[in-house]
Amino acid sequence: MTTSNHYLTSSVREFPRTLFRGIGQVMFQDNWLTGLLFLCGIFWGAYEENLGIVAWGALIGVVVSTLTGYILCLPDEKGANGLWGFNGVLVGCAFPTFMGNTIWMWIALVLCSAMTTWVRTGLDNILRPWKVSSFTFPFVMSTWFFLLAARLFSGMPPVHMSTPEFAHGIQESLNLDFGSLVVYWLKGISQVFLINSWVTGVFFLAGLAVSSWRAAFWCAVSSALALATVLFWHGPGGDIADGLYGFSAVLTGIALGATYCNNSWKTWIWTVIGVVVTVFIQAAMNAFFSPMGLPTLTGPFCVATWIFLFPDYSFFRPKPVADK
Amino acid sequence: MTTSNHYLTSSVREFPRTLFRGIGQVMFQDNWLTGLLFLCGIFWGAYEENLGIVAWGALIGVVVSTLTGYILCLPDEKGANGLWGFNGVLVGCAFPTFMGNTIWMWIALVLCSAMTTWVRTGLDNILRPWKVSSFTFPFVMSTWFFLLAARLFSGMPPVHMSTPEFAHGIQESLNLDFGSLVVYWLKGISQVFLINSWVTGVFFLAGLAVSSWRAAFWCAVSSALALATVLFWHGPGGDIADGLYGFSAVLTGIALGATYCNNSWKTWIWTVIGVVVTVFIQAAMNAFFSPMGLPTLTGPFCVATWIFLFPDYSFFRPKPVADK
Amino acid sequence: MTTSNHYLTSSVREFPRTLFRGIGQVMFQDNWLTGLLFLCGIFWGAYEENLGIVAWGALIGVVVSTLTGYILCLPDEKGANGLWGFNGVLVGCAFPTFMGNTIWMWIALVLCSAMTTWVRTGLDNILRPWKVSSFTFPFVMSTWFFLLAARLFSGMPPVHMSTPEFAHGIQESLNLDFGSLVVYWLKGISQVFLINSWVTGVFFLAGLAVSSWRAAFWCAVSSALALATVLFWHGPGGDIADGLYGFSAVLTGIALGATYCNNSWKTWIWTVIGVVVTVFIQAAMNAFFSPMGLPTLTGPFCVATWIFLFPDYSFFRPKPVADK
Repeated sequence: MTTSNHYLTSSVREFPRTLFRGIGQVMFQDNWLTGLLFLCGIFWGAYEENLGIVAWGALIGVVVSTLTGYILCLPDEKGANGLWGFNGVLVGCAFPTFMGNTIWMWIALVLCSAMTTWVRTGLDNILRPWKVSSFTFPFVMSTWFFLLAARLFSGMPPVHMSTPEFAHGIQESLNLDFGSLVVYWLKGISQVFLINSWVTGVFFLAGLAVSSWRAAFWCAVSSALALATVLFWHGPGGDIADGLYGFSAVLTGIALGATYCNNSWKTWIWTVIGVVVTVFIQAAMNAFFSPMGLPTLTGPFCVATWIFLFPDYSFFRPKPVADK
Repeated sequence: MTTSNHYLTSSVREFPRTLFRGIGQVMFQDNWLTGLLFLCGIFWGAYEENLGIVAWGALIGVVVSTLTGYILCLPDEKGANGLWGFNGVLVGCAFPTFMGNTIWMWIALVLCSAMTTWVRTGLDNILRPWKVSSFTFPFVMSTWFFLLAARLFSGMPPVHMSTPEFAHGIQESLNLDFGSLVVYWLKGISQVFLINSWVTGVFFLAGLAVSSWRAAFWCAVSSALALATVLFWHGPGGDIADGLYGFSAVLTGIALGATYCNNSWKTWIWTVIGVVVTVFIQAAMNAFFSPMGLPTLTGPFCVATWIFLFPDYSFFRPKPVADK
Repeated sequence: MTTSNHYLTSSVREFPRTLFRGIGQVMFQDNWLTGLLFLCGIFWGAYEENLGIVAWGALIGVVVSTLTGYILCLPDEKGANGLWGFNGVLVGCAFPTFMGNTIWMWIALVLCSAMTTWVRTGLDNILRPWKVSSFTFPFVMSTWFFLLAARLFSGMPPVHMSTPEFAHGIQESLNLDFGSLVVYWLKGISQVFLINSWVTGVFFLAGLAVSSWRAAFWCAVSSALALATVLFWHGPGGDIADGLYGFSAVLTGIALGATYCNNSWKTWIWTVIGVVVTVFIQAAMNAFFSPMGLPTLTGPFCVATWIFLFPDYSFFRPKPVADK
């Protein structure tokens, strides 16, 4: 009884930090200060875009998915590390970004955030034999279901989603002066949470630096590398300017360069190749989903990082894999 | 020799009951009387729709896929339980429902029904480590191949399939008086076998009640719950009226509520959430497959039920999983 | 040191044969003479089509992917058997076949060829518990990424890919005299390496016969059987004439009939069914990918052969499975 009470009390006292940790875990940082800075960046960017509900959605998402972990009585130490929250916060960012502001959208947001917690358990069960984790794929898969459903359910209309169409290259002019490139580079980072604001990108870099210089380094390098790649291959200008070729690459870079592999020159090469490949997978999934008008979310990051971790080469990956 | 003869004789004598069991297993009932009532419902509905060949296709499908199990010398007790037949009977319903009545369609029906038996062995081999089964996915996957091929093979034209188009919400008026709602609710049940008839829905409920009150209860509740969900979120009227948001939810409800989980209030909540999520997955797959003009079949049920069983939470699922 | 030097020297001396073995392994033949004849066929066909760069792409692809295996220090005996090269040679055929001849296409070709080597390790890791291998799927998956990306990246334009459109049956007249049928049949074989030339088909048959009469027999039979199937079901004339319903079936036939199953009458039946099913899966994937304008590559062969090997029936497959 006493133990149970103690457990409950400490959980309640720790709850805000657990939420911040959940937000930080989106970029693999088990650090509440990182999460707090991320959240500040989200609020700044959301209100800058006049879509404040995105930030409030993020808060609701992380609360709901974390609480779901407690309700399902999942092992507590994972929840305290924020591993129940990072999918939920992304659901919370995605729903108001893509769908109309209706009561049915908010109910779906709560359902989908909760769902990511058990989808994550299921996907991690599936992937366990190969020693890789599900990354943000519980968020990606669950959100795809609801965004696709929004096409047919006028109760939560897909007002901000792109129109379904056959994929085709778009000729758009793009400013390539230094100031513009810096903005594209920072937006590539802010888009990890679906935010289109260079200031938010600075917040995110600061949040990473608080927790790990190596993560901040690879975040910065990966966004720049992705930008260079998509410019060389002449990708679509509008998406480049909005940072839409950066966010998946950023996550791949932090995952390979600063989380799952040891810190050696072989890892550096592996990570650089991984980031470049992520850009092609990003474009591929954009084109594949074009007739459905479906955003890829962070799917390209998951696919790319799996491709680079499944081989399990001993010289890239001597570290035992952490749970996330 | 004597044993072998005895085996053969008893197989032949048991064969009709094995077929009925196969039809019953579509809704998880190892009961020949259930299957017989289901078959009566199929014949009633098929002739009511002036598509009698659907019922005859169902019969051919269950015979072919069951015989394939004997020919491949698969372990006999599974065949006797009807586990070779339930995918075949659905193939037999689907082919004449979607494709033109040509000799090449019938040959493909026989090939596809037979194929489900070894596809099922393969998928169950894949899924074994996670203690879930392939459900009706052998039927879904095999039939997808042939329905997609029908777009290009004019020998079996896709005359009753919807035209490929970009997904879009449809504004249709829908009668919401009590009588209409009951019809939609019963059609949600009859569509499990691709039949559009409320009378067939009554047959199916009766067939379930003969075998298991709990299964009949969850069948009825799930179709109603799916109907309520899709009405709240303003789904497309025509599909709602035809029961097309009910059939996957019905199967999820019986699977979670009356087959794979213990009977407790936690299971009840789990099943209700599972049924609601199935409705969104149904809409998502409808939208995703819209540019291909491909029906989802019972794919949404398989995906949803996997999502709710893969986590393997001990408090929802203390029962060891049966083979199907 | 001496051992290492010896290893290096013998590798360098063996390198050309390793490359030819890699080309031969596309049709499961660990035989350098087979690979040499295949390469002659590729050069003949490529120059006949006025697309000589396809042949040079093939050479670069097999060199890059084989070298990648050495650089990654993968176990050497596999490389010597050509198992690092067969995906790369196909990448090298595919890129200049579908995309414009730009410097960015060639850089992407090198990246994608290298990538197949670790994608193969990863996929084989995933599939190991079920004792099947990844076949040519590393080539298929990696190339899909780049071909889809080509839709959006004007630096490597998809000039020879078909326009995205909704799938629909096409009425085309088709010469059915004996000479034309022989040409379609041989082109079904040459398309394994994406070559549209009956002479190349003769080269490939000769290459197989040098290594294994059984493989040559099933190659010839499978292409004929696929042709008969697609003619009976009235498939699209242009694709039939170009051999596009043959290449996947040919690979399925050699895999089931001459590589992974014992040589018995049961295997013969299994292989014939497998080849026919491959034709439907080929059409299905053609239709499914039509809105994306994406070629199936040898994906239908992989899917079909998995479907026929995953069940792991003892009477079809008593031989222990080889590594490829």
